[in-house]
Amino acid sequence: MKNGMKVVVLGGDGFCGWPTSLHLSNLGHDVVIIDNLSRRNIDNELEAGSLTPIQPMGIRLKAWKDVSGRKIGFYNFNIAEDYEELLNVIQAEQPDVIIHFAEQRSAPYSMKSPKHKRYTVNNNVNATHNVLCAIVESGMDIHLVHLGTMGVYGYGTAGMKIPEGYLDIEVPTETGERIHQQILYPTNPGSVYHMTKTQDQLLFHYYNKNDNVRITDLHQGIVWGTNTNETNLDERLINRFDYDGDYGTVLNRFLMQAAVGYPITVHGTGGQTRAFIHIQDTVRCIQLAIENPPKCDERVMIFNQMTETHRVNDLAKQVSELTGGEIEYVSNPRKEAAENDLFVKNDLFLSKGLNPTTLDNGLLKEVTEVAKKYAYRADFSKIPAKSIWTKEQRPGIPEQKEENLVK
Amino acid sequence: MKNGMKVVVLGGDGFCGWPTSLHLSNLGHDVVIIDNLSRRNIDNELEAGSLTPIQPMGIRLKAWKDVSGRKIGFYNFNIAEDYEELLNVIQAEQPDVIIHFAEQRSAPYSMKSPKHKRYTVNNNVNATHNVLCAIVESGMDIHLVHLGTMGVYGYGTAGMKIPEGYLDIEVPTETGERIHQQILYPTNPGSVYHMTKTQDQLLFHYYNKNDNVRITDLHQGIVWGTNTNETNLDERLINRFDYDGDYGTVLNRFLMQAAVGYPITVHGTGGQTRAFIHIQDTVRCIQLAIENPPKCDERVMIFNQMTETHRVNDLAKQVSELTGGEIEYVSNPRKEAAENDLFVKNDLFLSKGLNPTTLDNGLLKEVTEVAKKYAYRADFSKIPAKSIWTKEQRPGIPEQKEENLVK
Repeated sequence: MKNGMKVVVLGGDGFCGWPTSLHLSNLGHDVVIIDNLSRRNIDNELEAGSLTPIQPMGIRLKAWKDVSGRKIGFYNFNIAEDYEELLNVIQAEQPDVIIHFAEQRSAPYSMKSPKHKRYTVNNNVNATHNVLCAIVESGMDIHLVHLGTMGVYGYGTAGMKIPEGYLDIEVPTETGERIHQQILYPTNPGSVYHMTKTQDQLLFHYYNKNDNVRITDLHQGIVWGTNTNETNLDERLINRFDYDGDYGTVLNRFLMQAAVGYPITVHGTGGQTRAFIHIQDTVRCIQLAIENPPKCDERVMIFNQMTETHRVNDLAKQVSELTGGEIEYVSNPRKEAAENDLFVKNDLFLSKGLNPTTLDNGLLKEVTEVAKKYAYRADFSKIPAKSIWTKEQRPGIPEQKEENLVK
Repeated sequence: MKNGMKVVVLGGDGFCGWPTSLHLSNLGHDVVIIDNLSRRNIDNELEAGSLTPIQPMGIRLKAWKDVSGRKIGFYNFNIAEDYEELLNVIQAEQPDVIIHFAEQRSAPYSMKSPKHKRYTVNNNVNATHNVLCAIVESGMDIHLVHLGTMGVYGYGTAGMKIPEGYLDIEVPTETGERIHQQILYPTNPGSVYHMTKTQDQLLFHYYNKNDNVRITDLHQGIVWGTNTNETNLDERLINRFDYDGDYGTVLNRFLMQAAVGYPITVHGTGGQTRAFIHIQDTVRCIQLAIENPPKCDERVMIFNQMTETHRVNDLAKQVSELTGGEIEYVSNPRKEAAENDLFVKNDLFLSKGLNPTTLDNGLLKEVTEVAKKYAYRADFSKIPAKSIWTKEQRPGIPEQKEENLVK
C-alpha cells in the first residue's frame, strides 16, 4: 500500500460514507468527499430524520479539522447526473482510490411507489456507470471500491455456503462430460434496490473485462451500530442512526424501539436469517479493501463484508432480554420467504486481519449510549414499515395505538 | 390466443419494429406504435442513413392504410423519459401485449465515446424499467415481449450447446453432494449495448418474481435481409437497410459492399462465429411469441431467436462467390475473441412452427433486389467501422483509398 493515498469518497455524507471518510483521513489518507446530500433531502421528503443529531457538512468538516488537524475536501453535486463535473474532479484530484457509496440504499424506499422505483434504478445505475466511464476516460489507474450488498445473492442457498462472489459449478454436457466453470454467483434480489446492485455487478464485470478497471465489490450485510472510534471523538462528528420504517436497519430499529418503549416489531414470523456487520467493522473492511487492491489484469475482487448471521426473531429476543422490551409480530410488508437458512463465507476479510465486533460485546453499549440517550428525539409515527412490496402485502404496524405507547 | 389483440409496439419505427408492426396488423391485430424516432435522429447525428429510402412515419402509416385498409396508431414520445405519458397510453389503449424494441441497439454506437456509452445505459435501462413499472402500476395483465440478444450469452461456450435462457448446473457442496439447479445462463456481454441487455434480464427476473408480470425475452441473433411480405407490398413501406460502420449488421454490410464494389471488410481473421436470422423470420417469431405467452405464474420465457450459425469469414466467402466481390481483412475495432465456436439450441421456435429462411435461398435475392437497386444512394465514407472498443484497437478501414474504389 502507498502511504497517504488520495481517496475520493462518493456518498461521503451517508451512514457508511461519513465514518469511512473519517477513518481513512485518520489513517493519513487525503480524503475528498463528493455528495449531493440526497440522504438529507430524503429525510425532508419522508419527514423523518436521524435519531442522533447529525450536523451539516460544514460543521462536520470543521469539527474534524478541530479534532484531528486534518482537512477533508468536499464537493456537492450529483454523480448520477453531472458526469462532466465528476470527470473534472477526478482529473483535478488524481485519486488512487474511489470509494463508491453514492446509491439510494433503502429497499423499502425503493418499493414505495413507481416514482421511488424509477428514482432508485435511474440514480444507482447511472451513478455506477458514470464512475466507471469517468475512470476510463481519465486514463488513470484508479482502484474502485464499491459498497454492494449480501442481498444480491438472495437468501435461498439450498444448504450450501455462499462463496465470496464466485461460484464453482459443473455443467453436464450431452456427451455426459462435466465442464467445470467458475461463475458470478447467480443473483436473486429481493427488492428494486437490491436489483440495482445486481445490475452494478454486470457493469463492474464488463468494465473490468473491456478496460481492465481494478474493482473491489463489497457484499455487505445489514449494518448495525452507530459510531466508530472517529465519530466518537466529538459530538459534532456523530453518525446517522435511522429508525424509520424505510431507512432504519432491522437491529438498530429493535434497539431504538426497546429504548423508547415501542413494541419490537418483527415482520412475519421473524424466521428470516440475515448477515450482519457493525459499522466499526465496515470502516475497517474498507481500509482492508484499499490496502489489498486487485492487480491490473485481475477480475473483480469480491468480499463478503459481514461477520455474523442471525435469525431476525433471535435478534428480537436478544434485544428483548437485554432491555425488557416487548416483541410484537406484525405483517411483513415485504414479499420474501418467511423462513430461510443462511451460510456465508467471509474468509477473505478474516484472513486480512478483521477482528469482528460481535453482538455479544456491542449491543448493550449501543442501547445505552445511543438509543436511550437520543430517545427524546424519536417520532413514533415514523417507526412502522409502511412500504409494501405488492398490493398483497400489509404494512408492519403494531396493534397497539400510538397514543397508548409510553413516550 | 385471442384474435384481434391490442398490441403496443415500442420502437415501432425501427428496423425490427416497423416490419413487426405491419405483420401483426396484417394478421388482424390492433397495432399502436410508440416511437420517439430516435433511430432517424441518430442518422442525423452520424450523417449516415438507410440504403433504402425509408419514408416519414406519416407516409408509412398512410401507405399501410392504402394497401391493407388497416389503421396503425402512433404516439411520438420517449418511453425512457416520459413515464407518465407511457402509463397514460397503456391505460387508454388497454393492450393485451406490449412488444419492446425501444432500445439503442448498436454495439459500435454504444462504444463510440463516454457520451454514447452513457446514453445507451441510461436509455435502455430506464426504457425497460419504465415499461415494467407502468405495467405493474396499470394493474393490467399484459404480456411483455422483449427483443434481447444472443450477445447476452457471450461467445465462449466451452463446447456445450447454449440453452434457451436457463442452464442446468450442479454445485458440488462441502459434503461431496451435488446440488442440481437451473439458473439464468451466466452472461458475458461484448459491448456496453450488450451489457444493457444483460441488465434488462435482471429487471425481467425481478418484476416477474415480485409482480408476476408475464414476460417473453427473445435472444435474437444478428438480423439480415431487409423486407418482409408486408414491407414489399408498397415501396413507401420499405424497411431500413443500414450499411454504415455503426448500425449495419455484418451480413447486410457484406452484401452492400459487394453490390457497390467496395471491399468486403472482414474484421480480424473472420474466425468469429455468430448466430443469424432473416428479418422475415424475426416478424414470424414475434407472432409465435405472442401466440404462446407464458402463464401468469410462470417464470420469464426465453427463446433463442436465431436460425443458423456461421463463421464470419465463411459468410464473406459466400458473398464473394455470389457476387465476385473482393474480401479484405482489416483491423478488428472490437475487443473480442478472434475465433470461437458457437452451438445454440433453438428448439422452442422450431417446435412452434418456424420455417426458417436460410442464407442459401435468400442471399442472392437480397443482393439484387435491395443492395444493387439502391447502391446509388451509398456514401462510401460511412462504410468503415470506426468505433473502437478501447484505445488498443484500430478502426476497420481497408487499405485501398476511397477515391480508387469504383462507385
